[in-house]
Amino acid sequence: MFSTILKNVKIKTPLVHCITNYVTVNDCANILLACGGSPIMADDEDEVEEITSICNALVINIGTLNKRSIQSMMKAGIKANEMNHPVILDPVGAGASALRTSTTFQLMDKIKFSVIRGNISEIKTVAQGSGTTKGVDADISDAITDANLDEAITYAKQLSAKTGAVIAITGAIDIVADSSKAYVIRNGNAMMSKVTGTGCMLTAVIAAFCAANPAQLTEAVAAAVSAMGLCGELAYSRLLNNGGGTSTYRSYIIDEMSKMDETILERGMKIESR
Amino acid sequence: MFSTILKNVKIKTPLVHCITNYVTVNDCANILLACGGSPIMADDEDEVEEITSICNALVINIGTLNKRSIQSMMKAGIKANEMNHPVILDPVGAGASALRTSTTFQLMDKIKFSVIRGNISEIKTVAQGSGTTKGVDADISDAITDANLDEAITYAKQLSAKTGAVIAITGAIDIVADSSKAYVIRNGNAMMSKVTGTGCMLTAVIAAFCAANPAQLTEAVAAAVSAMGLCGELAYSRLLNNGGGTSTYRSYIIDEMSKMDETILERGMKIESR
Amino acid sequence: MFSTILKNVKIKTPLVHCITNYVTVNDCANILLACGGSPIMADDEDEVEEITSICNALVINIGTLNKRSIQSMMKAGIKANEMNHPVILDPVGAGASALRTSTTFQLMDKIKFSVIRGNISEIKTVAQGSGTTKGVDADISDAITDANLDEAITYAKQLSAKTGAVIAITGAIDIVADSSKAYVIRNGNAMMSKVTGTGCMLTAVIAAFCAANPAQLTEAVAAAVSAMGLCGELAYSRLLNNGGGTSTYRSYIIDEMSKMDETILERGMKIESR
Repeated sequence: MFSTILKNVKIKTPLVHCITNYVTVNDCANILLACGGSPIMADDEDEVEEITSICNALVINIGTLNKRSIQSMMKAGIKANEMNHPVILDPVGAGASALRTSTTFQLMDKIKFSVIRGNISEIKTVAQGSGTTKGVDADISDAITDANLDEAITYAKQLSAKTGAVIAITGAIDIVADSSKAYVIRNGNAMMSKVTGTGCMLTAVIAAFCAANPAQLTEAVAAAVSAMGLCGELAYSRLLNNGGGTSTYRSYIIDEMSKMDETILERGMKIESR
Repeated sequence: MFSTILKNVKIKTPLVHCITNYVTVNDCANILLACGGSPIMADDEDEVEEITSICNALVINIGTLNKRSIQSMMKAGIKANEMNHPVILDPVGAGASALRTSTTFQLMDKIKFSVIRGNISEIKTVAQGSGTTKGVDADISDAITDANLDEAITYAKQLSAKTGAVIAITGAIDIVADSSKAYVIRNGNAMMSKVTGTGCMLTAVIAAFCAANPAQLTEAVAAAVSAMGLCGELAYSRLLNNGGGTSTYRSYIIDEMSKMDETILERGMKIESR
Repeated sequence: MFSTILKNVKIKTPLVHCITNYVTVNDCANILLACGGSPIMADDEDEVEEITSICNALVINIGTLNKRSIQSMMKAGIKANEMNHPVILDPVGAGASALRTSTTFQLMDKIKFSVIRGNISEIKTVAQGSGTTKGVDADISDAITDANLDEAITYAKQLSAKTGAVIAITGAIDIVADSSKAYVIRNGNAMMSKVTGTGCMLTAVIAAFCAANPAQLTEAVAAAVSAMGLCGELAYSRLLNNGGGTSTYRSYIIDEMSKMDETILERGMKIESR
């Protein structure tokens, strides 16, 4: 199943409209190309509806939101909903400022999201309207471990039921859940947290996977999360052989996505259904 | 001749003012440094005229245009014209939205461009006022092949006669034309389309080459197009030896530009005059 | 002493708020992570005060300033002053346009900076209100050499006395000075000038080092400057072994920062107290 999901991305080359932050935008574009999609970044209010109309999915990432881009996010999201495109929310830093938190809620109020992906602190903010986000990284006290995993899964399912979106909580252990089922994914490498944008990149990849697999969104998200984690593992193995550091590691992650195929994915996925 | 063009870039270190998109701006700055130029990015209306005055060429790239930057493009372009600096237009995604298409025409109406570089779909939009641009990539049905090459060359020459700009249409086969002559360039590698910004980077390099060779613009553009394609070839050879993917490939393209010299260029150019 | 400074960064993981240019922002985020800090980029007027409040230091980099971001810089800087956070100014291209020069002075008028870092041309503009900045690179006639080093040190000390900020003038020879003492640093490699953003990255690293060592700012700045130069040296050695160019070199610089430890720093620093 999961390998078919990847295959569909490569066959369909989904065009993904990203309204995203300027910190990691280049990596998002490159990993979209690497996974088999095609990126277009456009954030002016006067063109976002038209641009999103020619695309197959929309990413809304609030990493460097501003008054101008918030309006564009709204317009694009509403249009994408009208066209039944998957719309993916990455609430970067929700909880770190009132602007980020309130924008997240305004977006969720006006736009039906197919997927919401964040770290546990961001997702808690989405769920509760408040959080203890420390900047753009998860608060350590929130971390999902084997000890609180069952609780976290229930939490994710409930949030999915409430929002209608597939919920992806990413960290050392990843959870992907809809209202009735969940996947627990244990791919990844701790060094990924030393590279900016691995979360943003994953969100972009999720959009491509969803656009190419609209009938099985939860599995598409799970496959994307697992694929990204696997790239982190494979990149780390390659790094060990040549003494590189975090910047080479960043490149290798994208490299591995560009080399990913069905066999590599099936063999490397560490996923269980819950 | 072409090696002298490259030599002039390295001797003169032209300063290139770029008003460009935030997706590929870092790569544009780095490849400008790599080819022997020097970049400055500035897009506030209150400083673009002054900044462009101290530069030797101006790049206008509409990849993430917005109302604010469009005004800056206008002001900078008019000023650069007054100072007789080469002005290069990269109409990224022209045809994909009314805003991009109309902005392209407004820019062409107020500013005399020395060079317009785009993929075939973008150039068709420039020529006809409408196109079938699929996002920021060329529509496959538009591709230049040996079968329609003569026709495409005539098309490029006519557009150059109409606009007064050297026209560079880039793809698997590249065409560089003024109203009376054309160059067909067969450098490059298919993997370049899997890296975001190879077109934007080329536009920046063209600006440096034109700034350093104002008396032979068509040849300067042809040399830049060929050099960029050659970097794609050399980077690909190097990649084959180490199992990298698209992100390493991106780095290698810029690497090869930084290592390019007259001998490498002369030996590697696949160019014919038509 | 200097190795303790680095150790403090790694122990405290300072969160650094950056209002910076979109050209090199990704590199700034990645090198902050590499050195042991944590980045957050936010530039909307409505959130910068709140964001800076949860951080440990603020970087103001005017590389692609605009009317909107200038207001945000003001608000964030004033707030950071209230909270006694170190505030670092990188006056990119000051002297190249009236907007950059006047903004620099307005910022210095309203905000107390802990550190001002620039090339010699930018620092001269800061000191004199006028300069001969050629774009974003230093004017060659301004270069600090052994012949004018004593004079430059006196100049830096006087500027520090006048502004209350530690002054870091970076180039082939680097000077870090407060009003009473100075460090001369001879780390670095000429190839660093062929990579965009090495100055911006250094400014970000300085912020992390200052945040983790508030009681000895001058030494923190000197350690950061030396560490960055050392990364340039180590990256160059590694590059020689594999035939890479400027883009691989850029990655290696960040790599080396991520591998930097107290031993490497102590052994590699080329610093003298003056």
